[in-house]
Amino acid sequence: MAELGPLCVGIDPSPALLGRFELPDSPDGLRAFCEICIEALSGVVAVVKPQVAFFERHGAAGMSAFEAAVALGQDAGMLVVADAKRGDVGSTTEAYADAWFRGPLAADAVTATPYLGAGALVPMVRAARATGRGLFVVVTSSNPEGREVQEAVRRDGSSVEASLVRTISRWNAEEAHEAGSAGPGRLGAVGAVVGATGGASPEGLARLAGVVLAPGLGAQGATVADVARRFATCARGAVLPVAARAVLAEGPAGMRAAAERLGDELAAALCS
Amino acid sequence: MAELGPLCVGIDPSPALLGRFELPDSPDGLRAFCEICIEALSGVVAVVKPQVAFFERHGAAGMSAFEAAVALGQDAGMLVVADAKRGDVGSTTEAYADAWFRGPLAADAVTATPYLGAGALVPMVRAARATGRGLFVVVTSSNPEGREVQEAVRRDGSSVEASLVRTISRWNAEEAHEAGSAGPGRLGAVGAVVGATGGASPEGLARLAGVVLAPGLGAQGATVADVARRFATCARGAVLPVAARAVLAEGPAGMRAAAERLGDELAAALCS
Repeated sequence: MAELGPLCVGIDPSPALLGRFELPDSPDGLRAFCEICIEALSGVVAVVKPQVAFFERHGAAGMSAFEAAVALGQDAGMLVVADAKRGDVGSTTEAYADAWFRGPLAADAVTATPYLGAGALVPMVRAARATGRGLFVVVTSSNPEGREVQEAVRRDGSSVEASLVRTISRWNAEEAHEAGSAGPGRLGAVGAVVGATGGASPEGLARLAGVVLAPGLGAQGATVADVARRFATCARGAVLPVAARAVLAEGPAGMRAAAERLGDELAAALCS
Repeated sequence: MAELGPLCVGIDPSPALLGRFELPDSPDGLRAFCEICIEALSGVVAVVKPQVAFFERHGAAGMSAFEAAVALGQDAGMLVVADAKRGDVGSTTEAYADAWFRGPLAADAVTATPYLGAGALVPMVRAARATGRGLFVVVTSSNPEGREVQEAVRRDGSSVEASLVRTISRWNAEEAHEAGSAGPGRLGAVGAVVGATGGASPEGLARLAGVVLAPGLGAQGATVADVARRFATCARGAVLPVAARAVLAEGPAGMRAAAERLGDELAAALCS
């Protein structure tokens, strides 16, 4: 990843993009879409993020295409983040931990959503550590409607998002302590999803000791300069900006060049 | 449903319950588990709620067992609520709407999670209305860790959960207005998930004009009396208390009787 830079490309086989690729809106279309994307991006980007919702549209057959996409990405040497936004309580969170860290759907990392409280995600945190994979907890989304929940103020006076950042930092500190390997540069199993759009990043993000996944680059409105400004305090190499449509809409012939261009801009802006 | 009473049984094929049923922890085990449950509950309960996480543990093959479970429940005359807790933003929410209202996974209703803001779920609300299915938005969960998010206070001074109840009420009022059929007794396409555990129900729940799905009966600690107290202001027939382990742990031989007993207790407590 150090060689290829931080850009993560979202693999979003929406009906519109399947059409743009002249592929059918079917499980076979999903498979072909992922093959084209991974071949085009191989050697250019280190991380891809297939969006599970677009595979679920085709039910079990779509999820079979998702399993194939994970294998294909990993075979091409990429890290694969399953954007599933899962989360529940108790034994159900245990089941999601099995599903996304140990079962046939397991990629290198998965995203989770914390409406049921950060504590409810602990089985997924433990499974991430135990399997050497990553868990990205949604902290701040790239859409304006998310603000009403994420900036709401808890009883202890902190916002929901700031408190999540603190909890993730604590989890990663615990992990480092248990492993006896704390120290600068060490990143824990839990990262945060923080949209690339918007102003200042949530309080305390620089102390996360985890990776920040930052969707919203391009079609959702964030520029490379926005990313550089919003995550200025984060550790070098710890921010993965995500672009999907901005790259994919270039089609099979243009997407590799689009990813290279965006990757170069990001490398220049984030690593200088 | 009027005949069978309000009890909803959660179909949770966890590793522990598969073992209790002497079934393998495999896609075939999931299928057999669902067949046993639906046969045993047929004619006793009107609504079942398969928990998607337990099917995802087995990847695409598990999701195929989920599709079969939905068909089996519907063939037995039951309403099937897919407990998926999905939710995202923009075109991804559109994809979840396709997946859970129009695709092979579509049941009679699906649960959604609102960490990205209620507004982000609008494509699912529209799809529920258009397809005559239901959407249950998680408002208040049955676990204590959820309080820190759900009772947090928004800029407008209301709690996250109270504001969600207002938004759902508004959606259902809009729907009734568009259909020209407002009035008492009419329930809209959007319901709320409110855990059966805890004290008073969230503010304004009686004005929801939608169904309340109330997990937590039995193993998670809520009693029939708790349910009656917590939802005392809700319309008759508008609350579906959910029990899973309390019924399923009785095993293939005992679960029908356990569901009948619990159903009778609920009918007496809620409908008197």
